[in-house]
Amino acid sequence: MQTSPPPTAQQLAAFSSFAQTLADRVRPLSRQWFRHPLSVDTKADESPVTQADREVEAALREAIASQYPDHGIFGEEFGASHAEAEWVWSLDPIDGTRAFISGNPLWGTLLALLHRGRPVLGLIDIPMLAERWLGAAGSPARLNGEPCRVSACTGLQHATLYATSPDIFEGADMAAFEALTRSVRMRRYGGDCYSYGLLASGHVDLVVEAGLQPYDYLALMPVIEGAGGVITDWSGQPLGLESQGRVIAAATPQLHREAMRVLGAATT
Amino acid sequence: MQTSPPPTAQQLAAFSSFAQTLADRVRPLSRQWFRHPLSVDTKADESPVTQADREVEAALREAIASQYPDHGIFGEEFGASHAEAEWVWSLDPIDGTRAFISGNPLWGTLLALLHRGRPVLGLIDIPMLAERWLGAAGSPARLNGEPCRVSACTGLQHATLYATSPDIFEGADMAAFEALTRSVRMRRYGGDCYSYGLLASGHVDLVVEAGLQPYDYLALMPVIEGAGGVITDWSGQPLGLESQGRVIAAATPQLHREAMRVLGAATT
Repeated sequence: MQTSPPPTAQQLAAFSSFAQTLADRVRPLSRQWFRHPLSVDTKADESPVTQADREVEAALREAIASQYPDHGIFGEEFGASHAEAEWVWSLDPIDGTRAFISGNPLWGTLLALLHRGRPVLGLIDIPMLAERWLGAAGSPARLNGEPCRVSACTGLQHATLYATSPDIFEGADMAAFEALTRSVRMRRYGGDCYSYGLLASGHVDLVVEAGLQPYDYLALMPVIEGAGGVITDWSGQPLGLESQGRVIAAATPQLHREAMRVLGAATT
Repeated sequence: MQTSPPPTAQQLAAFSSFAQTLADRVRPLSRQWFRHPLSVDTKADESPVTQADREVEAALREAIASQYPDHGIFGEEFGASHAEAEWVWSLDPIDGTRAFISGNPLWGTLLALLHRGRPVLGLIDIPMLAERWLGAAGSPARLNGEPCRVSACTGLQHATLYATSPDIFEGADMAAFEALTRSVRMRRYGGDCYSYGLLASGHVDLVVEAGLQPYDYLALMPVIEGAGGVITDWSGQPLGLESQGRVIAAATPQLHREAMRVLGAATT
């Protein structure tokens, strides 16, 4: 890819505003399907998908293509189009489909905007709770328009750790996760993308997961980083389209380092 | 205890109305502490407790003592008073304190009214979601005033199973729970009392837990039963003050029987 200047604050402000318009547009769509009878199909990776996932993603794609026809799109349900474009949107219409189909309101819509492969804008929308985290490179992250900030937690022994489910870890990853949770103050399950919002707002100190897809984590990155936190893969490398889906998000660099050390010691 | 006629519909209607007044009164109190700095103490059983738990229970006790001075009260934080009374209230001011202190909105206030030891009225209030399930003997359970009903699920292979966390199971109970979850369609963690509300409304088919206290489950019973479901201990016995905290709640008698069979086979 050719090098190009980073996005300007003006571009990011315009795209942030557009991302909010997108989220506003699809909120009623996903809300209307929640707790209504839906046929649930199973995808190749055994994850569930519903008509709600497909309708929300279709609406998002249509709105993006209409406003920015030269932008690429990479979505959970309908794949990639113009993936080589300078600007590419990553879409997860319903993150937490298992929560969604069991009447649990802790699911969300995830939008990220990538500039030459790097996420510069992320949005986590929780339709049933009317909570929305927005992060854009160079600006503080916001929850419903108000700046939010991670906690000051630096030690594992004081940390509250969230993960969606122990079922996301396999083999050595499970052993590493277990080792980590033995050193924290409290671990809780459930949440999908909501856990990362709680981290960005300082309520949770650490989120550690595995088996995530790019559309699951790209939107989280600008939010966590804009709130002052750290998010990487389990070896401390930046997350990207090629990452293997092992995500660690921490309130502080110290906590991030400590968690990586425990995970690393358990897997080597 | 002397025998006495069961409560009349008129009595239950009056107590249901009073229970709603109680929940209305303390909703703003618990909401105001949510996501605000709180010092967290640790109780003898290692569970966390906060000023919010104590303030909410104190407000509930004061309102009950003022309206019904001859009723007994049994609360999570301040113990029993008049436990020998014909009518006794069971109170859990904040069920899901771990969710509460980590900014997760899926916690609730639980109220039950026992008549000679048997729960005849139960209320599950979820302050942050403004959702309230109410059950009273002989009436259909209601969510925010509208009748609700469990699902028609009769087979484990179709069932969605919830539990608060795998960490609530110890020893043989953990093995039994694992055996059960291998036979269901989907398992999810997180939720505390909210899982039972989702069961009463037909979104979740099965909730299986261990280590619960009476104030955790007494309020759930009239709600689950009023919604057409079944709730007992793991051997099918009615839950009471002396139960050992192993709870199974199911949408249908068939599902309840199947789940008990798998749990029993794994523990014997």
